[in-house]
Amino acid sequence: MQTRNKSFKNNLIGGTIFAIFGALSLPLVAHADEGMWTFDAFPSAKVQSAYGFTPTRQWLNHVQNSAVRLSVGCSASFVSPNGLILTNWHCSSDCTANLTTAEHDYGRDGFFARRQEDEKVCPGLSAEVLTSITDVTAQILASTRGKTGGDISTAREAAISAAEERACQGLDAQKYRCDVVNLYRGGQYKVYKYRTYNDVRLVFEPEYAVGFFGGDPDNFNFPRYNLDASFLRAYENGAPVRNVEYLQWTNEVPQNGDLVFVAGNPGSTQRLRTTDQLAFQRDWVLPTRQLVRSEVRGRLTEYVNGGETQRREAGEVLFSLENSFKAQYGQMRALMDPEFFGIKQREEADLKRRVRGNPALLRQIGDPWATIRTATAKQRDLFLPYEFLEARAGSISGLYGYAKQLVRAAYEREKPAGERLPGYSQSGLAQLERRMLAETPTHNDQEIIGLETWLSKTREYLTVDDANVQNMLGRESPEALARRLVNGTTLADPAARAALLRGGRAAIDASTDPMIQFVLRTDANARAIRARYVAEVDGPMSQAAEKIAQARFAVYGANLYPDATFTLRLSYGKVQGWTYNGVAVPSTTKMGGAFDRATGAFPFELAPSWVSARSRIDPNIAFDISSTNDIIGGNSGSPLIDRQGRVVGAAFDGNIHSLGGDFAYDGRYNRTVSVTTAAVQEALTKIYGLDWLVNELNAR
Amino acid sequence: MQTRNKSFKNNLIGGTIFAIFGALSLPLVAHADEGMWTFDAFPSAKVQSAYGFTPTRQWLNHVQNSAVRLSVGCSASFVSPNGLILTNWHCSSDCTANLTTAEHDYGRDGFFARRQEDEKVCPGLSAEVLTSITDVTAQILASTRGKTGGDISTAREAAISAAEERACQGLDAQKYRCDVVNLYRGGQYKVYKYRTYNDVRLVFEPEYAVGFFGGDPDNFNFPRYNLDASFLRAYENGAPVRNVEYLQWTNEVPQNGDLVFVAGNPGSTQRLRTTDQLAFQRDWVLPTRQLVRSEVRGRLTEYVNGGETQRREAGEVLFSLENSFKAQYGQMRALMDPEFFGIKQREEADLKRRVRGNPALLRQIGDPWATIRTATAKQRDLFLPYEFLEARAGSISGLYGYAKQLVRAAYEREKPAGERLPGYSQSGLAQLERRMLAETPTHNDQEIIGLETWLSKTREYLTVDDANVQNMLGRESPEALARRLVNGTTLADPAARAALLRGGRAAIDASTDPMIQFVLRTDANARAIRARYVAEVDGPMSQAAEKIAQARFAVYGANLYPDATFTLRLSYGKVQGWTYNGVAVPSTTKMGGAFDRATGAFPFELAPSWVSARSRIDPNIAFDISSTNDIIGGNSGSPLIDRQGRVVGAAFDGNIHSLGGDFAYDGRYNRTVSVTTAAVQEALTKIYGLDWLVNELNAR
Repeated sequence: MQTRNKSFKNNLIGGTIFAIFGALSLPLVAHADEGMWTFDAFPSAKVQSAYGFTPTRQWLNHVQNSAVRLSVGCSASFVSPNGLILTNWHCSSDCTANLTTAEHDYGRDGFFARRQEDEKVCPGLSAEVLTSITDVTAQILASTRGKTGGDISTAREAAISAAEERACQGLDAQKYRCDVVNLYRGGQYKVYKYRTYNDVRLVFEPEYAVGFFGGDPDNFNFPRYNLDASFLRAYENGAPVRNVEYLQWTNEVPQNGDLVFVAGNPGSTQRLRTTDQLAFQRDWVLPTRQLVRSEVRGRLTEYVNGGETQRREAGEVLFSLENSFKAQYGQMRALMDPEFFGIKQREEADLKRRVRGNPALLRQIGDPWATIRTATAKQRDLFLPYEFLEARAGSISGLYGYAKQLVRAAYEREKPAGERLPGYSQSGLAQLERRMLAETPTHNDQEIIGLETWLSKTREYLTVDDANVQNMLGRESPEALARRLVNGTTLADPAARAALLRGGRAAIDASTDPMIQFVLRTDANARAIRARYVAEVDGPMSQAAEKIAQARFAVYGANLYPDATFTLRLSYGKVQGWTYNGVAVPSTTKMGGAFDRATGAFPFELAPSWVSARSRIDPNIAFDISSTNDIIGGNSGSPLIDRQGRVVGAAFDGNIHSLGGDFAYDGRYNRTVSVTTAAVQEALTKIYGLDWLVNELNAR
Repeated sequence: MQTRNKSFKNNLIGGTIFAIFGALSLPLVAHADEGMWTFDAFPSAKVQSAYGFTPTRQWLNHVQNSAVRLSVGCSASFVSPNGLILTNWHCSSDCTANLTTAEHDYGRDGFFARRQEDEKVCPGLSAEVLTSITDVTAQILASTRGKTGGDISTAREAAISAAEERACQGLDAQKYRCDVVNLYRGGQYKVYKYRTYNDVRLVFEPEYAVGFFGGDPDNFNFPRYNLDASFLRAYENGAPVRNVEYLQWTNEVPQNGDLVFVAGNPGSTQRLRTTDQLAFQRDWVLPTRQLVRSEVRGRLTEYVNGGETQRREAGEVLFSLENSFKAQYGQMRALMDPEFFGIKQREEADLKRRVRGNPALLRQIGDPWATIRTATAKQRDLFLPYEFLEARAGSISGLYGYAKQLVRAAYEREKPAGERLPGYSQSGLAQLERRMLAETPTHNDQEIIGLETWLSKTREYLTVDDANVQNMLGRESPEALARRLVNGTTLADPAARAALLRGGRAAIDASTDPMIQFVLRTDANARAIRARYVAEVDGPMSQAAEKIAQARFAVYGANLYPDATFTLRLSYGKVQGWTYNGVAVPSTTKMGGAFDRATGAFPFELAPSWVSARSRIDPNIAFDISSTNDIIGGNSGSPLIDRQGRVVGAAFDGNIHSLGGDFAYDGRYNRTVSVTTAAVQEALTKIYGLDWLVNELNAR
């Protein structure tokens, strides 16, 4: 789920959290330490000149082979040859939410395997390692030459689908997956081949009240006192995998100024978008999503306040909404800051001026900015229906999501591979099947809240008299329709989903399930608005973006990094605090600080295991540390690595100033926040008594 | 409650509700029919030239003397000599919410006095009529000359307080009230003297399912089918008032093109603000308020869905939030539209250019725009703490509001009149006392939701480490603190409030009421941020605005109308539909149309009384009509008046295009929506059998 943004979080001392960008005046040149670099084009020479260390090809390969991507939208790393995976508490919390029952509230109380045999399967979770990168730019670009409107996307999707199938031909689909990745917004297309692990089990997750100590109020803030770490393990054929490449564990703590790397999968950045596109984000996308999200958040907050059962069932979704809210509020504030936006305008003006000064280049690329401006005007007409009928349809309702995917899978698989909607290729269908069959629980109250909000906001934003809304609601109210669909559907049962998935179109068309029937009634409208959006917005924009990428290469050379795409990147930087508005924030907190910050009132109550272990813990061990690495949501769980290639922490957040990092990196203030391996080891030893795990981590 | 914005609402055919401003290109000259004119400077000559009718001084006086302002932030009019008042359903719905009990759900079922003796007192509601206007510009402007920072406001408040006391000297404070009104943002100051009525009773309010048929989804949309009308009556000494001046009732319906007036109290517009101020609204004020409001809305929605009791108790507050949300969403969309904002920029550039071309004027006023820009930068630093600690403190909690006002009243009344905070002058304290003693119900669940949201959003926006937040919360969570305060306070009881009010500072300081103690603990911080905001933002801005007003008078002459200030204005226009994006919207709906729109599902189910009376109603009677009058929130309940001075409707909404009217009026699309007296009379006769009321309305 690459769109998932539950990824990481941030910090500030003094003032309000949103007086972020006041003093910001980014220079036009790239900052030191800026960049989310691909492994096949890492600027080792830059690192050498800044830090006196050259990551060799061998060093890079080792890190790449040890880095893990999780299907929940997180990053991680192997930390033992037996498939032990280090990631964040907030990356495994989805798993504990799925495992939690009325008897065992793992989400609140944590999970602690006392031996390997106790490890529990995380339903639906998979892990993968990037094994190779192959350039296919020429063939993808060739596929769309001369095409216009909706044909652009169709042709490109067909070429991508063909390239993926070719790259993975002859490989076991249960073990390998091939993805065409769009880099530099169409400047390059590359096949990323992954080794996948579809049986991932939970080993260790601390309690909520230490994994997320400080909760939403402290999220994206620093100094911070979070043990936002957990361990998973990859299995195959019912046993832990053997002899995987892994990062050596150490509990040495990097000091101020020390070079550190972050290897992980930043989810998405928009640094290469045009100012028209950024203005559209600022004026339409972000406000609409934030307003709807705030309302759902309010509904879930009220629901969760109803009691312990409600909190157990809906707490994880609420946390995810709150995290997205704060991250996107930071994005709004960045884009609304005239100074910040002015920097993006100046950057764009500089590129345009250089293009105009180069007649050959100008002939080659034309005026892609004008193309995007025209498409943005179309986008303004299409955004709300596209958002509500297609892109964000169903809100947080998982049952609606199942129904929509089942209906589409049934219809799409009847088409030739090159003509299907994105996500319904052969490998897409395999992933979809895994999701459908996973034993993940569904909670009807939460489903009703999601569906009802979606239906009523769709009516609100598109109006009562809109034909799509009338087709969707008929003569029912959003409240009645949501209840009827959720209470009547059988899709919470994996067996029911499996039957519909395997029954294909005949089973779907004959289904009496109300949710399936609802999707069948509304999907033509959703497909229609999607087709218009692709033809009038996405298609022209993507072609124009390819040209801007070519212009950038021509003008600035190849020494650039691409926007984040939830694919493996390496960032370098150093351990460092920052000074903002005269307040200096040190780089490192100590474990003892957690006890000082605890008030006993949620979310500032420390887990009882910690309170009773206080005297045994060394209060001076470094807890959380900040560094200048350039990361973003999706990087959660990424290993923090020293120059010897050892893991010294797990990145889990950015500071408050990093929230504008979606659009630009400011090395003066933008910081990554990680939990140290030293703190993890101290907790495993002194608090949780998990010596078997400590031994595995430290085995040589 | 002049800040109350639950005032009016709007419309559109086709497309989304927010594709409002796409085709908008306002000319720089004022539109025909633009303007919210004061009664002492009404442009009768303009009306004569456009419509061939001159409102004479006598005509104007009659309308002014018949127009009523309600303390719930609404407008109204006397429609019989015995104090009968016509207003909107949504202006009396606050009264029915206060009267509603578990036994009688007047909010849902309506209220129908069968004879005058059945009329019920509306707790805390008062009505007033404007009796005279006196210019005090010179003395108010003189008071601040040479002052800077916080002294500006202090001096002006003292001068205003003195002018008010002088104007009302010797008058019975139970019957008269004097207010200094700021017009043209400081271009003029005038004393408005009111005759007040503090015993207002409910006569007739239709059911929710006809007064607000279509609910929030249809709000601000048109065509519309709402009987958004109700009747109140002013009493004195326990009996209806006698021989008041009133508008003649008629059930004649004005036709397309007919001249109509709206006399009422538009609440607030920002048409004369500078573009820096508007950008601040766009980037800070509106997003912050809308995001917090959406979350409270979500919480209340979830709460109200819990059952009939919850709906009965919190439905009215939820309606008010939804109404504000839609109105302010329209404002956001207007200000985010570059074309719309460009118009405001060009208007400002034109004025600046003319000032620069007039050296004497330039010397007189300097560069007030630069002063405002500087103050806006300060505002950016102070806005969030000012918003959360002072301006919007307590959110929807009425109990917190009581406590804060009681504490401040105790401290402020010890100061000389000229040194008190605004609202604590002699007449302000008299109003405050009436509010404190009113028997309005309090609902603890709703209070907790309000208080908890406020406390937790304050922590979120100001951060955990803010000293104000730490003082506010201590070691309690927002949830625990909110519950303790609401469950422990006695302020829901008018007798408890009365005792504290009359006991003065000694009683307040000795109080063991937790809500009073909480305010005592936090008020110093709230006062401190208020003082800074007044000194660094309000003061300099208000002085600069006075200069810009002087520039405008000098450049464009006196033939301008002031921004709305919830004071009596007269707007002229004509009955007219509009055409947008090729879709023509007729001006008038018919009563029969309501039955076609009804689906039976909330909020599109018609009241049973209407369903059973369908055959008796003339389906062709005009129901709701649109006209070009320039109105805004606060105008709700305003009489729609024909050239003979007769009341032909009650304005209750604007269309969707009118939402940008806060900043500019566009005569092509901006429409007022009114319910006709014809429909009211048909319903009174054929549905409700209230002939006694119809007879009173039609008595000659």
